[in-house]
Amino acid sequence: MKKLLVIGIGAGNPDYITLQAVKALNQVDVFFLMDKGESKNKLIDLRREICERYITEPDYRFVEAHCPERERGDVDYKASVDDLNFAKQQTYERMILEEMADGECGGFLVWGDPALYDSTIRILQAIQASGACTFEFDVIPGITSVQALTAQHKVPLNQIGRSVEITTGRRLAAGQVSDADSVVVMLDAHDSYHHVADQETYIYWGAYLGTPDEILISGQLKEVADEIERVRKAARLANGWIMDTYLLRKS
Amino acid sequence: MKKLLVIGIGAGNPDYITLQAVKALNQVDVFFLMDKGESKNKLIDLRREICERYITEPDYRFVEAHCPERERGDVDYKASVDDLNFAKQQTYERMILEEMADGECGGFLVWGDPALYDSTIRILQAIQASGACTFEFDVIPGITSVQALTAQHKVPLNQIGRSVEITTGRRLAAGQVSDADSVVVMLDAHDSYHHVADQETYIYWGAYLGTPDEILISGQLKEVADEIERVRKAARLANGWIMDTYLLRKS
Ligand SMILES: C[S@@+](CC[C@H](N)C(=O)[O-])C[C@H]1O[C@@H](n2cnc3c(N)ncnc32)[C@H](O)[C@@H]1O
Ligand SMILES: C[S@@+](CC[C@H](N)C(=O)[O-])C[C@H]1O[C@@H](n2cnc3c(N)ncnc32)[C@H](O)[C@@H]1O
Repeated sequence: MKKLLVIGIGAGNPDYITLQAVKALNQVDVFFLMDKGESKNKLIDLRREICERYITEPDYRFVEAHCPERERGDVDYKASVDDLNFAKQQTYERMILEEMADGECGGFLVWGDPALYDSTIRILQAIQASGACTFEFDVIPGITSVQALTAQHKVPLNQIGRSVEITTGRRLAAGQVSDADSVVVMLDAHDSYHHVADQETYIYWGAYLGTPDEILISGQLKEVADEIERVRKAARLANGWIMDTYLLRKS
Repeated sequence: MKKLLVIGIGAGNPDYITLQAVKALNQVDVFFLMDKGESKNKLIDLRREICERYITEPDYRFVEAHCPERERGDVDYKASVDDLNFAKQQTYERMILEEMADGECGGFLVWGDPALYDSTIRILQAIQASGACTFEFDVIPGITSVQALTAQHKVPLNQIGRSVEITTGRRLAAGQVSDADSVVVMLDAHDSYHHVADQETYIYWGAYLGTPDEILISGQLKEVADEIERVRKAARLANGWIMDTYLLRKS
């Protein structure tokens, strides 16, 4: 039997890693890394560093595969993600079949928590369902960017007894958002906070959370939305990429 | 200046603790523990154990305070929580004023993540706003019960590109829930999953997640709702208390 571990490594600060994840890292024989093009190489390096830092016996190996890119532009979002995931599924399947022996343990290092806007669990389920190869897998939770955001701003995620919605920039821009008074927005490539009707809404915005490049801005949307857009653009230009998340709170 | 650390310790498995939290524990001179009556003593013991296990220099002390109880029964929920929090605020204020010296570091160990359905951050903000005493505080994120739930069931929290709502049993029972296809329910004392209209909805239920007493049940509501109610009642009776959380997923 082959065993896979889907290990959340936290979203930013290397110290976000849990002791459970450290123990899991130490069980892995082969780490599967997905290369997502130059802008993401920093994230691959970070994974290698995490292994170096936390693994006691350096008897593990890496297998790198090229990660197919999602088709962008004027395409159906869900369909393009499905296509991407199918391509990824085939890559993962090949890696599990060819790059590890029976009795070995394979590891996927997932940014943040594997349950949140990440496809690894879904892909492994699909491979199991297809019967293409047999393995067991376990999931190790990790600190999400949502938690990094609230911790760094020192604010609660929810109001007393109220709900929280976690959603995407795409849905916010399309008005597909509930009336929850706390809304977290991830995966926003287009400054979708400009679409929030109530400009008295408070925003807690954070980029590169938990890293040395972290930027935090908070205030009423009408006061800070333009500043966020400006800072975000500049940071993206300077670093070549950006990861940002924000919490919108109605008063 | 006094410094306070609000430290998330994860919701269940002691190995959920992060390296950041371990480092934070080791900075604390005085831990403030809130005694919530016998049923919760297990949680106080666990906090003491965490300190023993992870702190290298045992030069810290504990201060225990009795935690006021929320008024239950036929009262306004929000008002009773506000009252409770005001009583807690006075307790915390007294502890910070009387039980620690300038230059010392005080610690609060919070179950799960301090941002999620926990009042510590809100109370410290209120004390700062009141001007009753001056201090700085930092927040250290921890693995939430939501993440323990999805990791143990090995399922994603969201569907591809869709939203997630995190809410309470009270709100679910009152029908105050959005049309998100993934809904996480916490703080449910009354088996509120019986109120979900669409009985084809899938439920991933977990109690005492991450602990040796963990129970997991999943399936369509129409198939498993009664079983969950039965198991939950028996477990609650056997242990004297229960912590459970579930994810509802529309297909
Ligand atoms: C594909 S999702 C992965 C989320 C991840 N699994 C987690 O638990 O946070 C990527 C999105 O997460 C958010 N994100 C991840 N890391 C972040 C960080 N360090 N700072 C700000 N946002 C971050 C951004 O919204 C980004 O678009
Ligand atoms: C006051 S809230 C605190 C939540 C905590 N701050 C967190 O991050 O998970 C308590 C609720 O959390 C959930 N919970 C906490 N720990 C749990 C566990 N180990 N298993 C199942 N549910 C848990 C239950 O829904 C419980 O009613």
